[in-house]
Amino acid sequence: MPKSNSSNLPRNSGATESVKSEFKRQEVMRTIGAKVNRASPGEVEIELPFKHTLTQQHGYTHAGIVTTIADSACGYAAWSVSPPKSEVLTVEYKVNFLSPAKGAKLVARGRVIRKGKTLTVCAADVFTLANHTEKLVATMLATIMVVSK
Amino acid sequence: MPKSNSSNLPRNSGATESVKSEFKRQEVMRTIGAKVNRASPGEVEIELPFKHTLTQQHGYTHAGIVTTIADSACGYAAWSVSPPKSEVLTVEYKVNFLSPAKGAKLVARGRVIRKGKTLTVCAADVFTLANHTEKLVATMLATIMVVSK
Amino acid sequence: MPKSNSSNLPRNSGATESVKSEFKRQEVMRTIGAKVNRASPGEVEIELPFKHTLTQQHGYTHAGIVTTIADSACGYAAWSVSPPKSEVLTVEYKVNFLSPAKGAKLVARGRVIRKGKTLTVCAADVFTLANHTEKLVATMLATIMVVSK
Amino acid sequence: MPKSNSSNLPRNSGATESVKSEFKRQEVMRTIGAKVNRASPGEVEIELPFKHTLTQQHGYTHAGIVTTIADSACGYAAWSVSPPKSEVLTVEYKVNFLSPAKGAKLVARGRVIRKGKTLTVCAADVFTLANHTEKLVATMLATIMVVSK
Repeated sequence: MPKSNSSNLPRNSGATESVKSEFKRQEVMRTIGAKVNRASPGEVEIELPFKHTLTQQHGYTHAGIVTTIADSACGYAAWSVSPPKSEVLTVEYKVNFLSPAKGAKLVARGRVIRKGKTLTVCAADVFTLANHTEKLVATMLATIMVVSK
Repeated sequence: MPKSNSSNLPRNSGATESVKSEFKRQEVMRTIGAKVNRASPGEVEIELPFKHTLTQQHGYTHAGIVTTIADSACGYAAWSVSPPKSEVLTVEYKVNFLSPAKGAKLVARGRVIRKGKTLTVCAADVFTLANHTEKLVATMLATIMVVSK
Repeated sequence: MPKSNSSNLPRNSGATESVKSEFKRQEVMRTIGAKVNRASPGEVEIELPFKHTLTQQHGYTHAGIVTTIADSACGYAAWSVSPPKSEVLTVEYKVNFLSPAKGAKLVARGRVIRKGKTLTVCAADVFTLANHTEKLVATMLATIMVVSK
Repeated sequence: MPKSNSSNLPRNSGATESVKSEFKRQEVMRTIGAKVNRASPGEVEIELPFKHTLTQQHGYTHAGIVTTIADSACGYAAWSVSPPKSEVLTVEYKVNFLSPAKGAKLVARGRVIRKGKTLTVCAADVFTLANHTEKLVATMLATIMVVSK
């Protein structure tokens, strides 16, 4: 019934490489251990293996860290369809938390909902893997500003 | 003109101690280096000294980390007015980013907007200190669920 | 690229009739001229023909009215999967406006993202029809509380 | 405890008159019966007397109509500090509903949180009057785009 974007993204090696290279500029991603799995124009998948150091009081990944990878997935999805030499800035986002962020790893999939000249609206879903099935952990709706460098 | 909650919170040593003790259960707070400055019933202040390891591509603290401390400030503000032995869970939040999260430290101030039986609505403002003046970096509106343990 | 829920909903005459009957209790829907097109468990479609009396300064339907039908689509989608004799209350929502709400009619499609015991999270997309193609006007992410009567 | 902007706005006859004149361009405001009470640079108050025709199933004003006046209060607050001949467009908003929108009238107070070159962030609180006391019904956080005409 829910139309979540749970299918795997198509691989697109050009987009994946350029997003990976841009992603490396974010020190926090190295710190938390997040990486770009794949990207295609308008879609980016980020993966975060579980780390005890990022947990809240129940031992699950903290909502703010779930948000961090969802924000990245949205931001790079917007960036992947922006003009060369653009920067993207997060204007705002809203996140709903749907189930505990437990499991061996989280995957955030961001996609462009509407590309605009100044503002691009994106959504991201964050999933956990449990018993070989994906479970929706959080969903984000974000407004991203595109700025020419 | 903006009515931001920029005044210092009153100290309330009882509330501050119980929030500090609850806060220690969140591993991620130790990891990022956040701490509780003070708390009173319905208001909590969290501080985050700058760390290069938490930055985005411009060297400022990442939006997701700003969100992490704002979420904590909201969650513990809700918790501080909840019945004994309650747990709080973040249902959802929205954050607007207003200026770059630069400076030597960030301060997140959370407050209860409306306390309900099941849901408590909170707001948080995140400030940076620049030249002895506070500048508003982000503002959050959050829905928190209160669960009896 | 955007995964909007733009396909027509399956007809389900039982769900459609019970949602239509519940919908009639909202006086505002009669006032603005909105009606339930169809419903199936977890999905509801609301239609709003254009009315000059509901416009903003450019002659398009006002954002608040677009929100009104998106809220209805979410609320009734949640209601359609709730226990008998439940009521639904909107806790909060966020809406992004993507293009002008012009055209002869708007259609809001709501769907359940996650059904919970107390809270159900829904999304809605609002489309306009232009030259026989649907254009996305707004997208909503909503938290709905389910209360037993 | 909650720091809601519940004090009356200062009167500012110039701002009030120009906002009132701009407000008349919105047909929907006439339809629902909303009017501008007062305005000063960065702050606008809208009033909506109760109307049975705008209610939901419990006889209270529908969330979408509450949103409509909150959106107006935010939009005109942003407009009141924008360059001459600017237009404002609502990019997105989030609203939390805190108590039933009952009572003889609603009052929405919008204020600018941060004025930017392209985007202005505003907040609005909607109150009802009961027994001579104001009760908070809803709170909005909104992103408004300022466009030169």
